[in-house]
Amino acid sequence: MDVKAAVAFEAGKPLTVTTVQLEGPRAGEVLVEIKATGICHTDEFTLSGADPEGIFPAILGHEGAGIVREVGPGVTSVKPGDHVIPLYTPECRQCPSCLSRKTNLCTAIRSTQGQGLMPDGSSRFSIEGRPLFHYMGCSTFANFTVLPEIAVAKIREDAPFDKVCYIGCGVTTGIGAVVNTAKVEPGATAIVFGLGGIGLNVIQGLRLVGADMIIGVDLNPAKKAWGERFGMTHFVNPKEVGGDLVPYLVDLTKRGADQIGGADYTFDCTGNVTVMRQALEACHRGWGQSVVIGVAPAGAEIQTRPFQLVTGRVWKGSAFGGARGRTDVPRIVDWYMQGKIEIDPMITHTLPLGEINRGFDLMHAGESIRSVVVY
Amino acid sequence: MDVKAAVAFEAGKPLTVTTVQLEGPRAGEVLVEIKATGICHTDEFTLSGADPEGIFPAILGHEGAGIVREVGPGVTSVKPGDHVIPLYTPECRQCPSCLSRKTNLCTAIRSTQGQGLMPDGSSRFSIEGRPLFHYMGCSTFANFTVLPEIAVAKIREDAPFDKVCYIGCGVTTGIGAVVNTAKVEPGATAIVFGLGGIGLNVIQGLRLVGADMIIGVDLNPAKKAWGERFGMTHFVNPKEVGGDLVPYLVDLTKRGADQIGGADYTFDCTGNVTVMRQALEACHRGWGQSVVIGVAPAGAEIQTRPFQLVTGRVWKGSAFGGARGRTDVPRIVDWYMQGKIEIDPMITHTLPLGEINRGFDLMHAGESIRSVVVY
Repeated sequence: MDVKAAVAFEAGKPLTVTTVQLEGPRAGEVLVEIKATGICHTDEFTLSGADPEGIFPAILGHEGAGIVREVGPGVTSVKPGDHVIPLYTPECRQCPSCLSRKTNLCTAIRSTQGQGLMPDGSSRFSIEGRPLFHYMGCSTFANFTVLPEIAVAKIREDAPFDKVCYIGCGVTTGIGAVVNTAKVEPGATAIVFGLGGIGLNVIQGLRLVGADMIIGVDLNPAKKAWGERFGMTHFVNPKEVGGDLVPYLVDLTKRGADQIGGADYTFDCTGNVTVMRQALEACHRGWGQSVVIGVAPAGAEIQTRPFQLVTGRVWKGSAFGGARGRTDVPRIVDWYMQGKIEIDPMITHTLPLGEINRGFDLMHAGESIRSVVVY
Repeated sequence: MDVKAAVAFEAGKPLTVTTVQLEGPRAGEVLVEIKATGICHTDEFTLSGADPEGIFPAILGHEGAGIVREVGPGVTSVKPGDHVIPLYTPECRQCPSCLSRKTNLCTAIRSTQGQGLMPDGSSRFSIEGRPLFHYMGCSTFANFTVLPEIAVAKIREDAPFDKVCYIGCGVTTGIGAVVNTAKVEPGATAIVFGLGGIGLNVIQGLRLVGADMIIGVDLNPAKKAWGERFGMTHFVNPKEVGGDLVPYLVDLTKRGADQIGGADYTFDCTGNVTVMRQALEACHRGWGQSVVIGVAPAGAEIQTRPFQLVTGRVWKGSAFGGARGRTDVPRIVDWYMQGKIEIDPMITHTLPLGEINRGFDLMHAGESIRSVVVY
């Protein structure tokens, strides 16, 4: 079938909105009509050419929502008409990772997904007979896409596509890092480094679980109002701090009879390895946990004195918020519909597919929190 | 009173066995007759001058066992005649750290202990009127010492001093890292880097909790027999591995339907930051945890790509095996008396105080696992 898509023909060039061909679903696959898709920094990372694993030509996009229109042989968990969110981290519920109860990083289709292909090793997209690669197992920059059954989360039908598409990546990544990875408890003290689309979702995740002190750190003073909008209690602009940031943050978080400072939990949402170190070292001795969420440039390394760990700090990371997509994404959609979390104010721009490149421009200019393409 | 002690007058010199003066216990303190003490690498680290926080002249030693002989005003938890193990990590049960349920790093007397003094800011030891510093709050290289009440663990009276003194540091550090810090579960796959006194105790801790695959890594082929003695199932000598160690270990631990390798838990018992990185990177994607136990040289830093954390590996550390001394040390003494853990074969040398410097020589020569001084 012919579908409308924004194609990334090569790194560093704008997307080309055009018509491409899509084959129907094979065994274990579903055809989904994408109704809306967010534009995420990860799409930008790949499109820019900085992603060493980027493959072209491809149909990018991994933060969508839509409706199942057709299912291939053997598909049992969804049917035509079901509303779904595509999952770049699938949940097969059968691989050693899914069965481990310790990780969300399902390995069922990992190798083919990394090669831009469906699990059977082929592509469903093509243009004029030449294959186009899939992206992150999703390719939501097309109004129809084909996905493995294990890579769609069925959601309630009253959820608006142009909002809940953001749960496909940013919302779940931020809230999940708090709820699943760090397991933050009520009353905790936390610091969030970087108040972009992920950082703001970490902040609202902290508000959701009842954290007491929610400190946001960003170089952009305009982010103060944004952070406060979602529950931030203190804003720190490193440019305005005289001297080193870490002792400042440790001092700001001093509490208890012994007046030892440091956060119970810190989150890096910047991808900057120097900030990742600050985030670890701003943790409380004895139990502070630092969660790396941001994606660092290729080859960059984190560094610290091992004494930081021996005295009780824990360094960990989070991918897709530690969420098992089919199980947890529908719950987060419920939280949104119940008003426990907010999405609407973060979606600062809504665009038609023909203006998708403007969404990337808005991101570069720092003018958007999230731009969403509506088909 | 006059007591026999091995005094560290200055860094880099042998200890001097002589008579020193000891004041009796003040409020909240107890006088303990030390019956036996281990000689640990940490004593050596300080005596050598490499410890930037080392203070001289001091009475070293922190791995002892003995009998309470006198208690100061207000002491309620122990009485004369009680058998105890001194604790370099105290357990006051009242500070924010003790009350957190998240750490064993009690802060009640941290600042004075670091200064080589009792909690009231003075020393009980002196020689010819000149004060001698305490060490790690213990100073077990003397046949009598004074300790805060919160820094002694009361143990059963049938436990032999010349064996259970080792629980005061090495045994608890190794077994506790498994039981308290990593919380290893039955069936786990684990790698232990460095098979000295700590590493062997990690190995027997892994045996205790029912780990399936217990891999020991050491450059010294003589450690193979030592590791196997305490439950090691596989020995790897990096000198005999062609190529990089990490892929070799990942390959060795491949298992499950997806044949992904990497250990569930790794432990660094070397203090070498390059090994610490290998230990992290030899962890299983999704859930592997690496625990730093070894003490690195001053200024040394650990380093890795943050991708290691984002894909689910956790980097943490352990001090005194995460054990709350007064609560957990008596339980470990029980485990020894019940035969659940072994200590006797690790105590390779027993010496009188007059030969304490020979204990350090044996350590340097790699001939001992543990030397114990018996008073």
